[in-house]
Amino acid sequence: MTVKFGVLGAGRIGQVHARAIASVNGAELTAVADPIASAAENVRDTYGCDVRTIDQIAGSEDIDAVVICTPTDTHADLIEQFVRAGKAVFCEKPVDLSVARVRECLKTVEAESGILMVGFQRRFDPDFMALKQAIDDGQIGDVEMVTLTSRDPGAPPADYIKRSGGIFRDMTIHDFDVARWLLGEEVRSVQAAASVLTDPEIAALGDYDSLNVILMTASGRQCTINNTRRATYGYDQRIEVHGSLGAVRAENHHEARIEVANGNGYTRPPLLNFFMSRYTAAYANEIASFVEALTQGIPPATTGHDGLMALALADAALLSVAEKRVVDLAEIAP
Amino acid sequence: MTVKFGVLGAGRIGQVHARAIASVNGAELTAVADPIASAAENVRDTYGCDVRTIDQIAGSEDIDAVVICTPTDTHADLIEQFVRAGKAVFCEKPVDLSVARVRECLKTVEAESGILMVGFQRRFDPDFMALKQAIDDGQIGDVEMVTLTSRDPGAPPADYIKRSGGIFRDMTIHDFDVARWLLGEEVRSVQAAASVLTDPEIAALGDYDSLNVILMTASGRQCTINNTRRATYGYDQRIEVHGSLGAVRAENHHEARIEVANGNGYTRPPLLNFFMSRYTAAYANEIASFVEALTQGIPPATTGHDGLMALALADAALLSVAEKRVVDLAEIAP
Amino acid sequence: MTVKFGVLGAGRIGQVHARAIASVNGAELTAVADPIASAAENVRDTYGCDVRTIDQIAGSEDIDAVVICTPTDTHADLIEQFVRAGKAVFCEKPVDLSVARVRECLKTVEAESGILMVGFQRRFDPDFMALKQAIDDGQIGDVEMVTLTSRDPGAPPADYIKRSGGIFRDMTIHDFDVARWLLGEEVRSVQAAASVLTDPEIAALGDYDSLNVILMTASGRQCTINNTRRATYGYDQRIEVHGSLGAVRAENHHEARIEVANGNGYTRPPLLNFFMSRYTAAYANEIASFVEALTQGIPPATTGHDGLMALALADAALLSVAEKRVVDLAEIAP
Amino acid sequence: MTVKFGVLGAGRIGQVHARAIASVNGAELTAVADPIASAAENVRDTYGCDVRTIDQIAGSEDIDAVVICTPTDTHADLIEQFVRAGKAVFCEKPVDLSVARVRECLKTVEAESGILMVGFQRRFDPDFMALKQAIDDGQIGDVEMVTLTSRDPGAPPADYIKRSGGIFRDMTIHDFDVARWLLGEEVRSVQAAASVLTDPEIAALGDYDSLNVILMTASGRQCTINNTRRATYGYDQRIEVHGSLGAVRAENHHEARIEVANGNGYTRPPLLNFFMSRYTAAYANEIASFVEALTQGIPPATTGHDGLMALALADAALLSVAEKRVVDLAEIAP
Repeated sequence: MTVKFGVLGAGRIGQVHARAIASVNGAELTAVADPIASAAENVRDTYGCDVRTIDQIAGSEDIDAVVICTPTDTHADLIEQFVRAGKAVFCEKPVDLSVARVRECLKTVEAESGILMVGFQRRFDPDFMALKQAIDDGQIGDVEMVTLTSRDPGAPPADYIKRSGGIFRDMTIHDFDVARWLLGEEVRSVQAAASVLTDPEIAALGDYDSLNVILMTASGRQCTINNTRRATYGYDQRIEVHGSLGAVRAENHHEARIEVANGNGYTRPPLLNFFMSRYTAAYANEIASFVEALTQGIPPATTGHDGLMALALADAALLSVAEKRVVDLAEIAP
Repeated sequence: MTVKFGVLGAGRIGQVHARAIASVNGAELTAVADPIASAAENVRDTYGCDVRTIDQIAGSEDIDAVVICTPTDTHADLIEQFVRAGKAVFCEKPVDLSVARVRECLKTVEAESGILMVGFQRRFDPDFMALKQAIDDGQIGDVEMVTLTSRDPGAPPADYIKRSGGIFRDMTIHDFDVARWLLGEEVRSVQAAASVLTDPEIAALGDYDSLNVILMTASGRQCTINNTRRATYGYDQRIEVHGSLGAVRAENHHEARIEVANGNGYTRPPLLNFFMSRYTAAYANEIASFVEALTQGIPPATTGHDGLMALALADAALLSVAEKRVVDLAEIAP
Repeated sequence: MTVKFGVLGAGRIGQVHARAIASVNGAELTAVADPIASAAENVRDTYGCDVRTIDQIAGSEDIDAVVICTPTDTHADLIEQFVRAGKAVFCEKPVDLSVARVRECLKTVEAESGILMVGFQRRFDPDFMALKQAIDDGQIGDVEMVTLTSRDPGAPPADYIKRSGGIFRDMTIHDFDVARWLLGEEVRSVQAAASVLTDPEIAALGDYDSLNVILMTASGRQCTINNTRRATYGYDQRIEVHGSLGAVRAENHHEARIEVANGNGYTRPPLLNFFMSRYTAAYANEIASFVEALTQGIPPATTGHDGLMALALADAALLSVAEKRVVDLAEIAP
Repeated sequence: MTVKFGVLGAGRIGQVHARAIASVNGAELTAVADPIASAAENVRDTYGCDVRTIDQIAGSEDIDAVVICTPTDTHADLIEQFVRAGKAVFCEKPVDLSVARVRECLKTVEAESGILMVGFQRRFDPDFMALKQAIDDGQIGDVEMVTLTSRDPGAPPADYIKRSGGIFRDMTIHDFDVARWLLGEEVRSVQAAASVLTDPEIAALGDYDSLNVILMTASGRQCTINNTRRATYGYDQRIEVHGSLGAVRAENHHEARIEVANGNGYTRPPLLNFFMSRYTAAYANEIASFVEALTQGIPPATTGHDGLMALALADAALLSVAEKRVVDLAEIAP
């Protein structure tokens, strides 16, 4: 069986998913939709699919599943439209910036017995999967402390920041998901600190660029998250998990596995500088996982609930920063 | 000029300092004191010095300086006794477990125009000094985020925990000092999370074994500290500093610089397992720095004020854990 | 312009090239030939191309280029057949096991003004390309010494060894090519040592499994090659180049970029275990380079002459082992 | 029991050994001799020993052992003088530049039942000892191939080169000894290649600055040695041993265990730049081993025979370069 895909949105992330679909066995890119004709045509020309409107795709007999890569404020509506149309839905995170809207949307999905996968590609990175496997194999015993380091090479444009819900909802949200994936039990409380160190314009937008978060579970397991919008050395993505019997860490990806030595020292190249090159394999694995779930009739690996919980953690972190106190996740009532 | 030393206390840390004094040019071990005769005699036999009582050392014409390695609850009294006796004083941290008592003691030191160095040996570790030098050389620009990882191989005995003031005052205190050293401006607020994951007996003693701290300065610089009492892989001591132009990190010390490869992978030995072997060079450098300060008539590199501030940060962290909120350092009124 | 390919031979390496062709922009897999129908059909079903005979492909108007992946003893004949048929030819190394036959074949190519690329995929590995770029950028000054480490996880079957021309012609030949690529001037003399350490059956076949080679150029630049047929830790592929101003090295590829720490130490996974997974990117880049040469009308990056020289170095090394002396490459008269 | 030492020669290496003696339990520096009074006095002032003449030391009742750190051409005579005087002798390598003279000297030592340790400090480096231990523990199975990389930061002065016997006898000799130590069986044949790449003056002196050697044992175990007189990145000292079950390697010592990351990449400091700082621990361990042998009445860890064999390998390598052939060690008749 081949899963026939429509991609909604032909921007940067839409192209990533189009490429992933093209590279995955059992998946086929059938149509793409984008209000900007040239963007859609570009995908059509590269991968040999149709250009259709979103509504046409919703009504297409030859489409099994869609990947939603449109702006965030359209996600929840599109999810509802497409589960009602009987299509399996893969939606880029977040479902919405409002926890209440996400909850409502998930109810619709449930009512329609729809299939929804929310995109958290890091869970599908080969190195992070190997790290998770080491934990699941018992190599480090019980998880005790997770340390997540995620640093972007540079801040997104002001326009993006305005619409993104801020750093906790747009950037840290990935770490919140990874934390939940690795801690082995749900987070109970959140505390966070945030400041602006790289660009006063970010403060003017009411956002932060530098932050640390501490998560705690009921049994006392802890996770720290360290984020910054500016790392001169590339896209810094590390995970470290300490447990009762040992620890495991996943290392960064440098531009090449070489090292030059001279009187100044031993120098390796900087890190890959862009999330799309760093996570190329992860995006392909993610779509492959979605296709596998559809083909085998099993639930997707990352669900709408995962999307909801990551967003709730972001809200809790923001409240913690505002009120300078530990926030119980129950206060957010996800 | 040779600085003639008396060492007060011939236990584990007293022996470390005796060895350091013996190895430093310009320093001479003249006498040792310990209520346990065999302990003092052991140092005498190894380094060829006298055994005297503490009071004899205070009155000895041939003693220029003392190193206080006695139990914590005697530190403040001995500092006062010896600055009054006109001796330069090096005291192992902490000066006292009470901020008020430390403040009082430091007033006496000031009134007597005494010389007091408080032992924070990590500042003298060659790798950490190289890291600090890289920062001071401007290699990473302005410091933005400091990440400190300090994990002990195993918890100290229950008896020690009872008297130590708890993990924040006995273990994290070193990290608080390193944080102040590296952040480049004073800490303004503290938040912390702590739990017991390794041994319920630690909870019974009212202490913690696993913790994370976030420090924030006035300009928004941040520092995280990660501590645990149990790391199966050895004594884990890492520093990472992220700045506006780059980052610098100091790596761990393994038992040997070898790697064995076979079908199971590539394996390096575990870390050095004990603070005394890990910080051998640091302890020698620390005493050398003290001797240099005395010889050149300059202030010691780590002062009584440093000891006070690190203790105040520990108190603030404890208050934060208790009240689940961010604590302003001013509340502790150091 | 799209280059339309026929692949001759649908075995292991034929499949590697079919996949590479499918993944490269500007290349299209049009037909595959293999005497074993099921092998050819397997490629057809995976990539959607025709199955034809070799002669049909030679006569196909819709084929621009072929990739020769048939047994070694057919290479030279096929090269001649296809350059006469006006097809561009990519041939897996070696052209032939006989230097004389290779010379003859290259004359035919030249007489027909044919295009021939000989497959040495290591030159197209991203890490090795970055290493070469560092040299070309002058980062290490003049090349002085090249150190090549190539170790296979395990020996090929006895049948393969019998037909392969032995370890120098089948395995070391890749290192000879890399040496020529990196030394920056032609090799003048060769000396080698070889023994059998892993399996007496290899000695019974008249071959070796463990060897070291020293190459020397006219100006005194040196290269060493270290090969073994058995490395328990995976497929070990390292390059190190020392020059007048510095050195550069390329590191191995582990199965994942993780490290597990416990009381036994810090363990990274073993190396990728197979040349096809280790060199996936190299094979794709190699075909892309061939396509680029055809499209732009420039000579291929690795030529028949390169194939001839690598084979001559293998012959020289064998002669050196037999006669226990340094062999001048001129003796082989490549 | 304390072993009382006289040090003959107060130059660079004499000071290294004086410091080592001072740092080793059970050893005491009693006297130093040097024709340059100020050199001897400098050692006296630092370590608190007597200054005596060589003959006075030979006749001193309070001297148990000597360390010979005089110019090479005096070694054999002094060894003979001091074993006749009943002193245990530690002599820096080489015993002499002539194999015949070494043989003669060793006969005298044997006739006098003298104790002679020849200094090959690398066997006492903590990392190399850990590597050897891993081999002895069976972690890599049977040793098959040893790879030694030894690169000096810069060439010694022309005057030293003239008297040193050339690079094979002065520099590679250490690698020959390490090879014998690690191969687990005696070397049977030697082949080498050498050239001058860093400085034509070295060629004018009849010496080389860049070389590779291949050693082979009777059972086919192999060792390669790579030497150069110029490495801009420091004093490069690596060992790698490949065996039937795995491999082990020892890594270099950088100036500090830090890494700075920025837009240019990740940079570690260069290597320690000097054999005395790189091998500080090795020199101390070496003297400790000698003291232990004397105290326990067991043979020294590195004997006159080891000195003879390393020199014979150097001679064999030189002959190989001259005659461009494999040289059987038996030809040198060590």
